Amino acid sequence: MSILVVGSVAIDSVQTPFGKKDAVLGGSATYFSIAASFFNKVNMVAVVGEDFPKKYITFFKRRSIGIEGLEIAKGKTFKWKGQYDYDLNKADTIYTHLNVFNDFHPRIPGRLKGANFLFLANIDPELQYSVLSQMDRPRLVACDSMNYWIAHKKRKLEKVLTKVDIFLLNDAEARQFTGEANLLKAAQSIQSIGPKVVVIKKGEHGVLYLSGDSFFLAPAYPLESLRDPTGAGDTFAGGMFGFLSRVKRIHESSMRKAVIYGTILASFVVEDFSVNRLLKLSMTEIKARYRHFMQITKFS
Amino acid sequence: MSILVVGSVAIDSVQTPFGKKDAVLGGSATYFSIAASFFNKVNMVAVVGEDFPKKYITFFKRRSIGIEGLEIAKGKTFKWKGQYDYDLNKADTIYTHLNVFNDFHPRIPGRLKGANFLFLANIDPELQYSVLSQMDRPRLVACDSMNYWIAHKKRKLEKVLTKVDIFLLNDAEARQFTGEANLLKAAQSIQSIGPKVVVIKKGEHGVLYLSGDSFFLAPAYPLESLRDPTGAGDTFAGGMFGFLSRVKRIHESSMRKAVIYGTILASFVVEDFSVNRLLKLSMTEIKARYRHFMQITKFS
Repeated sequence: MSILVVGSVAIDSVQTPFGKKDAVLGGSATYFSIAASFFNKVNMVAVVGEDFPKKYITFFKRRSIGIEGLEIAKGKTFKWKGQYDYDLNKADTIYTHLNVFNDFHPRIPGRLKGANFLFLANIDPELQYSVLSQMDRPRLVACDSMNYWIAHKKRKLEKVLTKVDIFLLNDAEARQFTGEANLLKAAQSIQSIGPKVVVIKKGEHGVLYLSGDSFFLAPAYPLESLRDPTGAGDTFAGGMFGFLSRVKRIHESSMRKAVIYGTILASFVVEDFSVNRLLKLSMTEIKARYRHFMQITKFS
Repeated sequence: MSILVVGSVAIDSVQTPFGKKDAVLGGSATYFSIAASFFNKVNMVAVVGEDFPKKYITFFKRRSIGIEGLEIAKGKTFKWKGQYDYDLNKADTIYTHLNVFNDFHPRIPGRLKGANFLFLANIDPELQYSVLSQMDRPRLVACDSMNYWIAHKKRKLEKVLTKVDIFLLNDAEARQFTGEANLLKAAQSIQSIGPKVVVIKKGEHGVLYLSGDSFFLAPAYPLESLRDPTGAGDTFAGGMFGFLSRVKRIHESSMRKAVIYGTILASFVVEDFSVNRLLKLSMTEIKARYRHFMQITKFS
């Protein structure tokens, strides 16, 4: 039941009202993989430059994250710098240097084409489509995207969505994608394009999930301290997918539990910069917070 | 187990992106009473002017809302005009004509001093305090307030809070009151002043509730159409209090159910202008939506 993620591995510089970090590990595939690795074996397909610190490679290996598909290309690693104001739901990008990511053409190594669980992190929909065509028959495919692709490659993204089971996006993207202010209606409208399941992430306000005609609403886990929201969405996806990869049969109840595991993993990652909190995290802590979440949301 | 509310009865004019209504029934005591009247007998203490339409008096009577404490004073009824933009969490006031409300000095009729459940709707904390001193020994006291009193009569409001079991306020007010951005910490800080229970209303993002050291998070009921958010908070309080007045013993589990009943009642009132939706509402619909809410929030 292996998991494959295709996305970015990056070097981030981040400033929030609670601190500042330069040149730390980032990227969608990074966050996703670390979160999912609490549950299962993950393989990543991504590209970094020759400047990518060896210590991170060692780190991925130590966490049993498969890096057979992590290409080391001539040039520099993808670099992103962003800052957040007190409205932590929205990052302002200072710069994006795509570097080697500019020429990224994901090639799935033969052994990984049979992966059961495929997560297409936020990359050009053309590349997401090319990944889908290289795979054998994944049991579950999820994908993420962003405002840029919705604005500039909507057609291609829609084509990807016809082949995807779960589409994860945030509230602003859902409204942009559908032209629909109401998130229930936006989710239904996206569903009509293809994905059976639509997950709309509302940051500190939780998640709206639609599967078939069944809605599910989950608040975010309430945090006393939040330092850096970077990677919350990919960590959510990693927790959700990681959990799903461990259940015998995926049904509505396991999907909902998976959403809560995503919520819990995301609640940890934002407590510190980069992936720092995940590095110190244990399954015992994850389970304790899951139980606490049950307590604070139960009413009958 | 009678309920008493002290607050305003007003004539509102409201404009939202979804329509416009002039000179319709409004006021905190109005919304609260109608919502609570689905569960129990309610008495209101408020003041209106000689211009107050007879049809509304008849309407209160028909709903078994006790108006023994509704004073009809020389002058005009309290009038409020407001408008909402697409961010429906925040009203812009066009005018507030207090009129007879300016000289409102609530006098609790003797028969009502023994009420078990007292709701102090949003009025001057001096008046809330005077009401408290007129009462015998209410079993449960809740109160609401607003940014104006927090800014101008904080001391008096704090004095009221030492005698109150439940304090309901919205997220902006909680932050203003405590100077604390984090709502968990804000709730704890308010609790230390007196009220055992703090309910922070986050509009479309639901409710955060703290009782003792037990937190409870509830999302709002997701609506496909929302026309006018006026009165949502008082309707929430009415639903919550109405339900509580019917349970044998109030414990944590009944408090949480009461919060959900508040959520459900509020979800109905915002579907139409003024109290229109509540007029057509049945207990069957309330219970059906409560069950639906259980379905869409359950994950284990």
